[in-house]
Amino acid sequence: MAPDADTRLRGLEDAEAIRTLIARYGPLADAGEAETLALLWHEAGEYDVAGFGVARGHAEIAALIEAPFHRALLAQGCAHVLSAPAIALDGDGASALNHSMVLRQMDETWEVWRVSANRWEFVRTSAGWRVARRVNRPLDGNADALALFVGT
Amino acid sequence: MAPDADTRLRGLEDAEAIRTLIARYGPLADAGEAETLALLWHEAGEYDVAGFGVARGHAEIAALIEAPFHRALLAQGCAHVLSAPAIALDGDGASALNHSMVLRQMDETWEVWRVSANRWEFVRTSAGWRVARRVNRPLDGNADALALFVGT
Amino acid sequence: MAPDADTRLRGLEDAEAIRTLIARYGPLADAGEAETLALLWHEAGEYDVAGFGVARGHAEIAALIEAPFHRALLAQGCAHVLSAPAIALDGDGASALNHSMVLRQMDETWEVWRVSANRWEFVRTSAGWRVARRVNRPLDGNADALALFVGT
Repeated sequence: MAPDADTRLRGLEDAEAIRTLIARYGPLADAGEAETLALLWHEAGEYDVAGFGVARGHAEIAALIEAPFHRALLAQGCAHVLSAPAIALDGDGASALNHSMVLRQMDETWEVWRVSANRWEFVRTSAGWRVARRVNRPLDGNADALALFVGT
Repeated sequence: MAPDADTRLRGLEDAEAIRTLIARYGPLADAGEAETLALLWHEAGEYDVAGFGVARGHAEIAALIEAPFHRALLAQGCAHVLSAPAIALDGDGASALNHSMVLRQMDETWEVWRVSANRWEFVRTSAGWRVARRVNRPLDGNADALALFVGT
Repeated sequence: MAPDADTRLRGLEDAEAIRTLIARYGPLADAGEAETLALLWHEAGEYDVAGFGVARGHAEIAALIEAPFHRALLAQGCAHVLSAPAIALDGDGASALNHSMVLRQMDETWEVWRVSANRWEFVRTSAGWRVARRVNRPLDGNADALALFVGT
């Protein structure tokens, strides 16, 4: 049976909400808005960033943004640029794949400091969609980054 | 009261139209299509670009693209790459945040010449959505770029 | 006559499906998933990449990804990052414009090795949307890349 109009509308709205969650990450990271950024995640959510460990819950995720290393990046001038995601909906869950790039301002130009594969998982809550898990691995030829993108 | 199907459809179409406006900017800037690019804006629209002043209306916005500096960039080989925006709808208005990067071809590789924060404002007209204002500030650690991304 | 709700829903779903096709390309190219990547295209589809010729059909498109040059890029660490497309629907066909960037990991940083203009054409099939043709031209100041972006 073909899905009814309400179900189709809901699918489109789900994709739109997830696209917005991902698109808000970069501006919030650049601006150092640690608390607001953390609230993109579910309260039990995880952010697993190679080289920085696994942050669990809002306080640990906000602490990543507040860390001296990240604060120094922001002071120097940096941009967290995320590519348009491939989103797959699955009822009250969803996943997405995309790239992230961190660029740093140098003297006269910008350096691309880090380029990573990202796999995102989302959960529908009574307050809307939230990030359940984000895994970030630099695309440096190691198998763990490629594994995020395999089988998609 | 929950919004009806027509209102939900209109919200999705609004986001789609705004996404398309933003996505058309880069190709038009690269191709030097000054007149068509200017028409992405409302006739009273503004384009405020750090280092280049505030262009108001179609003729001034087209003139930015026609300027010798921009023409020289195009001849050298350049790309105006914009990231996927975070869009917020508000009736007949809307706003969006994203990154823009300008890359220039050098001898064997590409240089990232400029990376900016962008805040866009849109207005619904009888002919569709148009850009009311775009503010562009390089993410060089100055507070004015971060201010575009704060509170989002 | 204004389009009915079903037609509007279908337009939104079409744009969503095409956005997903484009967004899946980069992760599949990075991961070297040649067969799955080729299936983004129609069986009679074309992928015309400056410097690499015109691949026609699934086997030739997969062969581009399997080629020693591309395998060496993957082993070194690389990312195929695509920008958010400007999509234009036209019944059972559609087109889109966007940028693609190929980044390579060097010692401590990343090099932007290639930045291209892309024009995509799509066709609706009984199994969903597929790529009918993708043309990729580096934005190195040559007219053929700009021609992809003119008149959009």
